[in-house]
Amino acid sequence: MSVEDLVLPLLRPTRLQLSLLSRFYATISRAIHRCMRARRIRGDVTLQGSFAKGTILSDKWEIDVFLLLDNVDLGWLRKEAEQFLVECLGHRLPVVIKYSQQPYVSVSLMGMEADVVPVARGAGSYRGLGAERTPLHTEYVRSRLDEHRRDEVRLLKSFLRGIGVYGAETRTRGFSGYLAELLIVYYGSFRETLRNVSRWRPPIYIDPEGIGDRTFMTRKYRDSPLIVVDPVDPQRNAAAAVSRNSLETLVLAARLYLEKPHPWFFHIAQPSSLPLPPLPGWLLRIQCRGALASKPPDSVWGRLVRSARSLRAHLESRGFEIAHITVESDEYRSVSITILLDSCRLPDMEVTRGPSITSDLRRATRFIVKRLRESGGAWLDGRRLTGARPRPWIRRSAILASLEWLYSSSSLPLREIAPECIVSCRRCGEENKPCNPTPPWIASLLRA
Amino acid sequence: MSVEDLVLPLLRPTRLQLSLLSRFYATISRAIHRCMRARRIRGDVTLQGSFAKGTILSDKWEIDVFLLLDNVDLGWLRKEAEQFLVECLGHRLPVVIKYSQQPYVSVSLMGMEADVVPVARGAGSYRGLGAERTPLHTEYVRSRLDEHRRDEVRLLKSFLRGIGVYGAETRTRGFSGYLAELLIVYYGSFRETLRNVSRWRPPIYIDPEGIGDRTFMTRKYRDSPLIVVDPVDPQRNAAAAVSRNSLETLVLAARLYLEKPHPWFFHIAQPSSLPLPPLPGWLLRIQCRGALASKPPDSVWGRLVRSARSLRAHLESRGFEIAHITVESDEYRSVSITILLDSCRLPDMEVTRGPSITSDLRRATRFIVKRLRESGGAWLDGRRLTGARPRPWIRRSAILASLEWLYSSSSLPLREIAPECIVSCRRCGEENKPCNPTPPWIASLLRA
Repeated sequence: MSVEDLVLPLLRPTRLQLSLLSRFYATISRAIHRCMRARRIRGDVTLQGSFAKGTILSDKWEIDVFLLLDNVDLGWLRKEAEQFLVECLGHRLPVVIKYSQQPYVSVSLMGMEADVVPVARGAGSYRGLGAERTPLHTEYVRSRLDEHRRDEVRLLKSFLRGIGVYGAETRTRGFSGYLAELLIVYYGSFRETLRNVSRWRPPIYIDPEGIGDRTFMTRKYRDSPLIVVDPVDPQRNAAAAVSRNSLETLVLAARLYLEKPHPWFFHIAQPSSLPLPPLPGWLLRIQCRGALASKPPDSVWGRLVRSARSLRAHLESRGFEIAHITVESDEYRSVSITILLDSCRLPDMEVTRGPSITSDLRRATRFIVKRLRESGGAWLDGRRLTGARPRPWIRRSAILASLEWLYSSSSLPLREIAPECIVSCRRCGEENKPCNPTPPWIASLLRA
Repeated sequence: MSVEDLVLPLLRPTRLQLSLLSRFYATISRAIHRCMRARRIRGDVTLQGSFAKGTILSDKWEIDVFLLLDNVDLGWLRKEAEQFLVECLGHRLPVVIKYSQQPYVSVSLMGMEADVVPVARGAGSYRGLGAERTPLHTEYVRSRLDEHRRDEVRLLKSFLRGIGVYGAETRTRGFSGYLAELLIVYYGSFRETLRNVSRWRPPIYIDPEGIGDRTFMTRKYRDSPLIVVDPVDPQRNAAAAVSRNSLETLVLAARLYLEKPHPWFFHIAQPSSLPLPPLPGWLLRIQCRGALASKPPDSVWGRLVRSARSLRAHLESRGFEIAHITVESDEYRSVSITILLDSCRLPDMEVTRGPSITSDLRRATRFIVKRLRESGGAWLDGRRLTGARPRPWIRRSAILASLEWLYSSSSLPLREIAPECIVSCRRCGEENKPCNPTPPWIASLLRA
């Protein structure tokens, strides 16, 4: 029995799940139809996304409801749609207003969640928004995937999530559900996709329907390591969000999995805690609070990721050895950067390597004079200039170095969105956090 | 007034020094002549070396006495010369027996020291030994250097000593006094020598008398960065001992001096302690004892230098940051290696950088499995595999790592000659040792 055969039953939605989601949809649909009639708005209420396409996973209790409206314009969508949706749904269900390229709402019921997105249909209203393409994607995928291939999509999506590259948002810069579906359409199966991926050497160009202009696309998406021509829009790269990191992570995971398949590559089969010993390192945490709910999550994550990169460079330039770095946010009021270090404190003396003896005189002189002015020293170590200096106290402690960074201009992206910060650095395990960032799919190598 | 003008009076021997050394020579010469007559050994007692050449420095109270003997053979030199010298000189002066390529003795009087070297003169006895060339060197240098140029030699010798590259022995692998004299013969003056040296790019070929075969010499001394054809032996490189390190040190020092001359480049004008702050580092010391007096100093230093190199590699591979390393020996019973470190202790966790994600699968797998087996972890950090592991206790402490090294086979060169070792690692300053290895000539940059 293959690993896929073991995992697949866990990924398929149960009949109960499907019927609850259907009923949830019916409730929403009814409520909106009633409103539309009352306000003389014409159009269709439709089911989209993975539930509509039959590729939903067993642990996903979410549906996408799109209102395809005929007699509304963009001004209405931008200004009145929000009010309309809150009034239609708000008296029965809790409603949260969200923003992507335009406002939409999210309603929830007994742990189920529905995004309700209004779209203007009809001549002259197409603006190339993601939301407007969604119905076309649903249609395309339904036409191309039979029941068997939907299972293959489920495997691929779970695999992508399992290795941390599922999702096109800024936080992940990975593979969207739609992209996973396109890969299965193109390669035919999960295994065949992995086999091909394992041989990928970016840049990769894939055109499932053979409708794209390769020269045009490779110029337009010059920086994309992966181009997948969108079957419903030949000028669009359905893989535009995929970063090189995500792509290469998938390549490595595909190779490892093909070599030694293991359930831990699939998110659904990953244990909540791994049988790994905690590492004897130190955790530097920068936790900040601010009003994030009003900001688009992509913007929050973008700043957070940029801040983490800047902090990392700051710490590394001061001599700290960084093992691992993670960012977290509830997208509501808190963000955090957690860094696994070998030590929270650096030695009092800092050793610096200088230019080679025979490099030009000015560089050598500059190195020597700098070290001497810093109350340090310089000498020859073999054929290299070497020096040392007392490390300033602010640079010895990871906490102080982080505070220095927080108040320097380069860290503005974080301070702008979450200005109240607490910095701590503690021995691993003191905060009850698991102190071994090895992901399950990598840990599986020891098991296989 | 130039720096050289300031320094030169300090370098010239005083009349008192010259007369004391002359009288010392007369005493030795008389005693040996008496012995020779008694044993019917014919030959000359001659004065050689820098005293004879008029290039002696004011702080050098040493003379070289060569016995050029006619009616002795190599067997006598090897087996009986020692006994002969001890009997001739030992009843008046303390005598130490030494070995170079053959036995000779060193006698001392009131702080003065004389090396007394017997050499066989006459047909068929020339074996190409260094000692046999010495009289020829003395003669050559006397014929080429007038009083003015002897001062230039003194400046150059003091400069070479000041920057730590004076001496052809294994310990230094630098410039002999004779080589300094040849450079002054060739370039004419101290300044002109430095000006030329500052532009040197090894390999350098110099033939003061134009008597060498360049093709032959560059092949014979393929590994020498500097070839100076010996005027008394066209197939010999008078600079064969010079290492690339010493050569490049001289190049850098020449450039720095020409840019900003300072008395601290000359050994005679260097302060006994520099106005430099102690570095806040740690000193790792390995002190060993053994019977060294019976071993040729070059062999002791050779082993010591090789040991230091091996220990350095051992410590660095374990993650210690080495700022500076020195070796010392009294050539009698103790040797030591002193290492300036930023810390005696490494963090409990060790971070290791792995191959890039897209390197071949086997390397990636090996890295992951290794980290997992070591109770560590592995993960992706950007596009690189990164890992961490607990550092074994023996690798955390510089003292333990050094002991481990001492008892491993790679360190045999040290254990063989000095088997009793003590290892310590202390904060700088605790042992009253100056903790800033900056040499005076480099420190002078801050003063100029």
